[in-house]
Amino acid sequence: MSGPWVVGVDIGGTNLVVGLLPLEGGAPLGLRSRATVPERGADAAVADIARMVGDSINEVVGLHGGSREDVLGVGIGCPGPLDLEGGIVIATPNLGWTDYPIRDRISKALGLPATLDNDANCATYGEWWQGAGQGAETLVGVTLGTGIGGGLILDGRIARGASGSAGEIGHTTIDLNGRRCACGNYGCLEAYASGPNIAARAREGIEAGYESVLSELVENNLESITAATVYEALVLGDEYAHEVMLETAKILGVGIANIVNTLNPEVVVVVGGVTRAGDHLFGPLRAEVRRRAFRSAVEACEIVPGDLPETAGVIGAAGIFIAEGLEG
Amino acid sequence: MSGPWVVGVDIGGTNLVVGLLPLEGGAPLGLRSRATVPERGADAAVADIARMVGDSINEVVGLHGGSREDVLGVGIGCPGPLDLEGGIVIATPNLGWTDYPIRDRISKALGLPATLDNDANCATYGEWWQGAGQGAETLVGVTLGTGIGGGLILDGRIARGASGSAGEIGHTTIDLNGRRCACGNYGCLEAYASGPNIAARAREGIEAGYESVLSELVENNLESITAATVYEALVLGDEYAHEVMLETAKILGVGIANIVNTLNPEVVVVVGGVTRAGDHLFGPLRAEVRRRAFRSAVEACEIVPGDLPETAGVIGAAGIFIAEGLEG
Repeated sequence: MSGPWVVGVDIGGTNLVVGLLPLEGGAPLGLRSRATVPERGADAAVADIARMVGDSINEVVGLHGGSREDVLGVGIGCPGPLDLEGGIVIATPNLGWTDYPIRDRISKALGLPATLDNDANCATYGEWWQGAGQGAETLVGVTLGTGIGGGLILDGRIARGASGSAGEIGHTTIDLNGRRCACGNYGCLEAYASGPNIAARAREGIEAGYESVLSELVENNLESITAATVYEALVLGDEYAHEVMLETAKILGVGIANIVNTLNPEVVVVVGGVTRAGDHLFGPLRAEVRRRAFRSAVEACEIVPGDLPETAGVIGAAGIFIAEGLEG
Repeated sequence: MSGPWVVGVDIGGTNLVVGLLPLEGGAPLGLRSRATVPERGADAAVADIARMVGDSINEVVGLHGGSREDVLGVGIGCPGPLDLEGGIVIATPNLGWTDYPIRDRISKALGLPATLDNDANCATYGEWWQGAGQGAETLVGVTLGTGIGGGLILDGRIARGASGSAGEIGHTTIDLNGRRCACGNYGCLEAYASGPNIAARAREGIEAGYESVLSELVENNLESITAATVYEALVLGDEYAHEVMLETAKILGVGIANIVNTLNPEVVVVVGGVTRAGDHLFGPLRAEVRRRAFRSAVEACEIVPGDLPETAGVIGAAGIFIAEGLEG
């Protein structure tokens, strides 16, 4: 079990997570997680990451033997848009950082070679390498969180497209005159089914007069409704929360049907907190895909929740370094 | 210029086209085209194709020397859904044939090995091999006709997906509560922007009271409006026809923006009669893509009309045989 290892770093809008992966795969070792606090700035996050990775390496080396020299590099996952070649965060709405050379800063802070990819590609790669999509030739990952992202595995490799931005499934249009999205467009999948937009839709319904235990759960402070509160209400048997989840599922079904008709994948892995809703989400979601996509494509495709809810990002970030960063 | 050659067969809802392609590419030789008349049945179409190919080979051999033995095989393009492995037309709404082993029947009739692929993949491959998309690593073809189809070239190869149905762009949803589509769904791209649906939208507007030279062009028999009549009216400066084309362009822009955000291609080639509208179509179409897709993806992507309006299907069908059928 003593090295070599690769560090995985998962920079999320909420948490920073780091861990060490053996080259041959397996559970991440020496996992560390802490709040991101993006408003402290990118330099502070890099310092946090360096400290966490240092602790993680010490722990792993202490437990398994080997030395710091057995750590070969670091794979980083970060919300985009990114300049992948330059290793730069161009602009990340959920972090507020712009034109920040995150890859080289982390590389320098750790004294290790580094790769950078977007968080959705990392989560997708993680689920494909060690999670719910193992062995698929064609796999699409859909990440549900503050935003909605996606990653594509085609012919056993991440497909990044001509400028590294393939997989932006959250910003495909499902209703051309629909809800305004944070990206400026109308009717994007994300405008309905991201965490904040699930919460917003729930709030709007209550403001329009729907009765729901949600009002109690947030002590009538409707602004504090989140996707998690909606899930909580659902578990309590709340009919309105059930309705909100049903609409979420249908809308995600429309977006995923588009993917299924476009790419005809073997597996669509859906990851993120909302997947805790289980069959409340996946039942109507799969039904909507069946209604909208071609039968042969539907029959060829499994739509499943991720297997690695906490660690897909770290595993995938390290996996991408192992697949692509060791070559250089 | 004497062989070897490969036959390309393009089975369309309107025309059958055949021709011979040199292995190294170039313009198709001995081109033959005739009306499909699908209601005479698939066997009659196979007999027509065999006759046309025979004539074509005689002409080419007569002009260029060589012999029938220099014809190595036949690539067939046909509207789907198809069972590609079995070489079978499962069900083709635009032809009315079901469960017909088209590949083996043509192979037997010609005494040549054959490959079958769907018409949109063939047109896409043709444009990529010899047309508007030469050299692109990632290219998407969008075929506008009686239906809307699509083909994907990823990493220099046709991507067919898990069950051979990748690229069904016409049946991606752009308006989840929108127009009913022939496929049974609501709000598919095809429900707005296929030839018959462009005509239907034009007709509906006139029925609702819009003034247009279209009424004159069809002598008030609105049922005989086609996409071609709309184009004719546009050329005559008709404002309403211009509006219909503008809406068509915007809707295609939404569908293509989804492709651009999902696949981040270098080139999107749009083929079919509607592309005759030129900048009337491509101007607002590109503007809508710019509005909806991520900037880096838009900047990396050319959206262009096909270069091979009559022959992309034949060239691509033969090209796919050359790329994949010669191996076996």
